[in-house]
Amino acid sequence: MRLPSSLRCLGASALRSVITSTHNPRVAAARRLRRSRERRATGRTTVDGPLLLAEALDNDIEIIDVFASPDDTTTAALCDAAGVALTLATPGIVATLAGTVNPRGPVAVITIPQPEQLAQRDTVVLWELADPGNAGTIIRSAAAFGFQVAATNRTVDVWSPKVLRAAMGGHFRTRPVDGLPAAGVHFASRGLRLVAAVRTGGEKPEEVLGDAEPTAIVVGNEAHGLPAELLHASDVVQVSIPMPGGSESLNAAVAASILMYLRSRR
Amino acid sequence: MRLPSSLRCLGASALRSVITSTHNPRVAAARRLRRSRERRATGRTTVDGPLLLAEALDNDIEIIDVFASPDDTTTAALCDAAGVALTLATPGIVATLAGTVNPRGPVAVITIPQPEQLAQRDTVVLWELADPGNAGTIIRSAAAFGFQVAATNRTVDVWSPKVLRAAMGGHFRTRPVDGLPAAGVHFASRGLRLVAAVRTGGEKPEEVLGDAEPTAIVVGNEAHGLPAELLHASDVVQVSIPMPGGSESLNAAVAASILMYLRSRR
Repeated sequence: MRLPSSLRCLGASALRSVITSTHNPRVAAARRLRRSRERRATGRTTVDGPLLLAEALDNDIEIIDVFASPDDTTTAALCDAAGVALTLATPGIVATLAGTVNPRGPVAVITIPQPEQLAQRDTVVLWELADPGNAGTIIRSAAAFGFQVAATNRTVDVWSPKVLRAAMGGHFRTRPVDGLPAAGVHFASRGLRLVAAVRTGGEKPEEVLGDAEPTAIVVGNEAHGLPAELLHASDVVQVSIPMPGGSESLNAAVAASILMYLRSRR
Repeated sequence: MRLPSSLRCLGASALRSVITSTHNPRVAAARRLRRSRERRATGRTTVDGPLLLAEALDNDIEIIDVFASPDDTTTAALCDAAGVALTLATPGIVATLAGTVNPRGPVAVITIPQPEQLAQRDTVVLWELADPGNAGTIIRSAAAFGFQVAATNRTVDVWSPKVLRAAMGGHFRTRPVDGLPAAGVHFASRGLRLVAAVRTGGEKPEEVLGDAEPTAIVVGNEAHGLPAELLHASDVVQVSIPMPGGSESLNAAVAASILMYLRSRR
C-alpha cells in the first residue's frame, strides 16, 4: 500500500491517534486471522516481529495494516522507508495480536501470495504434516535450497503465524502452494517424479536424487508417515536416509532438509 | 529400581493407593525438577509421555519414580514388564507434572546418565544454543548418525523436559556431556578437530568433513552464531552449507544435522 509521503507513517508523532480499544474494527479483523478458516476466507494472514515484516517488505508482499506501539521507533522507520502506513496501538493491543514470541510486535496483516498451480521444478511436498515448527523449518530450508513448496489439504495451515515464524521469511521467497489433493497422481500429472521419504527400507539418497527429471520430495506426517497407497504406487520411489547410529528416527524437517540439500548438490 | 514381583506395579489394582495431594513429598520433588538448578543439584530430571518412558527403560536409565493415573493401563503394563514400581496419582496431579504435550502422562523421574568426559570421536557441540527444540532435534540426529553430543555451559539445559521431548530418546543413546567450558582449547585438548558451522564464507562441507581425525562440529547460538574468538582460532576450520536458493539462513538443527549426515557418509 503506497501512500503519498504526507500520509506516511510518522512513528510516535502526535499527529497520529493511538488505538486503545480491542473493539476497533481493524484490530478485530486482524485478531480473527488467528483462525485458519478466516485466513482462507479472506486470503490474508498476520506476521509478527520486525524480521518477518522486513522480509515481507523486501519481497513485495502486499501489506494491509501494520500495528505497532507508539514507542516502536524501529518499525516506524521501517514503514517510513518502505512507504507503508503504520497504525499505532497500545502495547496491550499489539500484544493481543502478536504471538508470545514477539509480544512487542509489530504485527502486520498481509495478503497471502500464491501461485495458481505447481511449476514443473524441484519441489518439497508437505503431506499431512502436523507440526507448525516442522512445516516452517522445511519452508526455510526450501528457500535456502531453491525448492518449490507444496502442501496437501490435510497439512497444518502453512500460512499460520507459527509456521511463518519458523520459516523466517521463507514463505515470501517460495510462495507455497497449499490445499492440494493428497493424491500422488496430482503431482505426477504436473510432470513431477515422486520420491517419498521413509524411515527405513527405501533406496539410498544418492541412488534416487541424481535424476535430471523435476523431482518432488514427499515428507509425511510426524506420527503416521506416508499412506500406503502413495508408497506403493508404481511411479513412486522410496528413499531412506542411512542412520549408522542405529536409531531409526529423524525429525521430519531434518529429513526433508537433508534430502533437499543432497538434491541441490547433485 | 528392581522390586520383588510381589511389589511390582499393579496398574489400577485396589491394592495400591492413589496420590491425591500435590503436597505429597514425591510429587513435590518431581515438580521441583522443572527448575534447571534443581536438576543440577539432584542429578535427576523428568521425562513425560509413554515413548520417552519406554526409551528410558530400553536404555537402562535409572528410574526413580513413575507417576501415572489409575486408568493408564499402558504405563502399568510397561512398568510391570520392566519390573519398575509405578506410583498412581490423580489425572490432575499427573497433568501438573507433565508438559502440555503429554498431559495424560506418564511422568517419570530419572537419574541423568552422564559420562565424565568427552571421548575422542566424532562429536556435535552445542555452543550457547538457546532453543530447546533445536537442541533436542540435534540430539535426535546425533543418535541417528552415531555422534557424541557435547554442550557448553551457556547452552539451554539439555536435560530439560522440552529438550528431552524433541530428542525422542536420543539422550539415552548419546548421553550428552554438558556444562563444558566455552573454549575451543578444551575440545582441542581432547583430540578433537574443530569445524565451526557459519552461514556464509566457510569451506564447503565435502572439503572439510572427509578428514580421518575425530571431528567436533560446532553449532552456535540461533541469533548470534559463534563468537569471533572461536571462529578465528588457528585450529578452527569454518564450514558453510551451500544455499543455491540465495537465502542465507537455515535452522540451527537443520544445519547441524546436514553436517553430521555428510560426516557420517564420508
